[in-house]
Amino acid sequence: MRYARIAVAGQPVWGRVGERDIELLSGSPLTGTPDVVGTVPADGAHWLPPVVPPVFYAVGLNYPRHIAHAGATTPARPEVGYRANNALTGHRSPIVKPADVEGRFEAEPELVAVIGRTLRHATREEARDAVFGWTIGNDVSARTWQHQDRTFWRSKNSDTFKPMGPWIETDVDALAQTTTLRVNGETRAAFATGDMVFDPFAYIVAITRYLTMHPGDVLWMGAEAVCAIAPGDTVDIEIGGIGVLSNPVHPEGNPS
Amino acid sequence: MRYARIAVAGQPVWGRVGERDIELLSGSPLTGTPDVVGTVPADGAHWLPPVVPPVFYAVGLNYPRHIAHAGATTPARPEVGYRANNALTGHRSPIVKPADVEGRFEAEPELVAVIGRTLRHATREEARDAVFGWTIGNDVSARTWQHQDRTFWRSKNSDTFKPMGPWIETDVDALAQTTTLRVNGETRAAFATGDMVFDPFAYIVAITRYLTMHPGDVLWMGAEAVCAIAPGDTVDIEIGGIGVLSNPVHPEGNPS
Repeated sequence: MRYARIAVAGQPVWGRVGERDIELLSGSPLTGTPDVVGTVPADGAHWLPPVVPPVFYAVGLNYPRHIAHAGATTPARPEVGYRANNALTGHRSPIVKPADVEGRFEAEPELVAVIGRTLRHATREEARDAVFGWTIGNDVSARTWQHQDRTFWRSKNSDTFKPMGPWIETDVDALAQTTTLRVNGETRAAFATGDMVFDPFAYIVAITRYLTMHPGDVLWMGAEAVCAIAPGDTVDIEIGGIGVLSNPVHPEGNPS
Repeated sequence: MRYARIAVAGQPVWGRVGERDIELLSGSPLTGTPDVVGTVPADGAHWLPPVVPPVFYAVGLNYPRHIAHAGATTPARPEVGYRANNALTGHRSPIVKPADVEGRFEAEPELVAVIGRTLRHATREEARDAVFGWTIGNDVSARTWQHQDRTFWRSKNSDTFKPMGPWIETDVDALAQTTTLRVNGETRAAFATGDMVFDPFAYIVAITRYLTMHPGDVLWMGAEAVCAIAPGDTVDIEIGGIGVLSNPVHPEGNPS
């Protein structure tokens, strides 16, 4: 199943995405079994981030080639960081580059695990069972800020820097797929989605030793490759079996 | 006014706190003007965190004496970090010390600004107007983890490490108060709440240059002084004009 959130008359509504239509749901599939209350065409839908997480977890260095490229040390333990909900935006909505961003402005294509259960002290098997489904994230990063600031507050959490979607796919072997990053239709990177230092289940086991995870929490799994993006570009991230997250890049102040 | 969230029959309910009673409200005062739908005695109430924020902002080094004590450099700009909602707990609920925490385990008494409006590109005056009210936070920290981990994920975000409450006070000159930290009734620190490098309004102006803040977001303002806490202790943080946030410390595995 593919579950999405779309805007209907300005309000967020959950939907089940089919080939041509989206069945509108009476509530969240993360916390119950909602009824179908209507149908809209998928074409032209206003896609929202498929979930607004109670906690937004993000893994940093998790792909061997990215770690080597960054000149960093391979983590010995799964350690997680955080991103902020204000930065989320949906499929097809613009990534807005702030006017005063200088230097490298980059896309990072990431697999995202969406948690469907409350869990603490999870075993690896419980961690597997707790993943409701998978979506795609773009961890847009302004590198000069990332290096000069004490935290990632604006380098990775400015408004629109966290596109997520287009939907949550519940039936996919996400770690057996390929992640492809395209800019204006041209492939800029492709890597084995599952070639991680620690997989999502290892992270969930580690996190829940001390922290309770809740339905709707998201865990962004890091990227192997990044690429530069600029206003005027369209950035597509495809993960096999899930779909394509596509976002145009706009300059700040451009209302279109 | 004092607004709180309490558990009634296991469900979170907003309330307006009086001398002896809590008036139960039909909804959140952050997003509307709720009706009074009942009354319960304040004595024995089950206090929840007064808000579960969309984004949980936390200021690090913000008091000159704390910065000197930490051997750190005074920040030249207001830069904010994040904490995670799983760690929140309410007034009188236990702080649970994980069994494998070693070394310094400390309380940090903090003023908390609760945002009441959606704002972006705020002026200082708009920032002032956007603060709905003030509460108290305890930024409980496990220092060995804080120093050895790449992020603050478990050192500051383990379950129960972020007591907040007891309520949101809307009518107080919060920066003109004194913050007092007591362990088992004995004063361990007292400092001028407003003696900050950057005040809350400066932070809100800086944050909203790039990030949209929303009703319910919280901004923890840092601490001047910290003190050790241990299972068996009761930690009280008082800020004049707001109230007292009190939490016992339990060892992990103690169900009481």
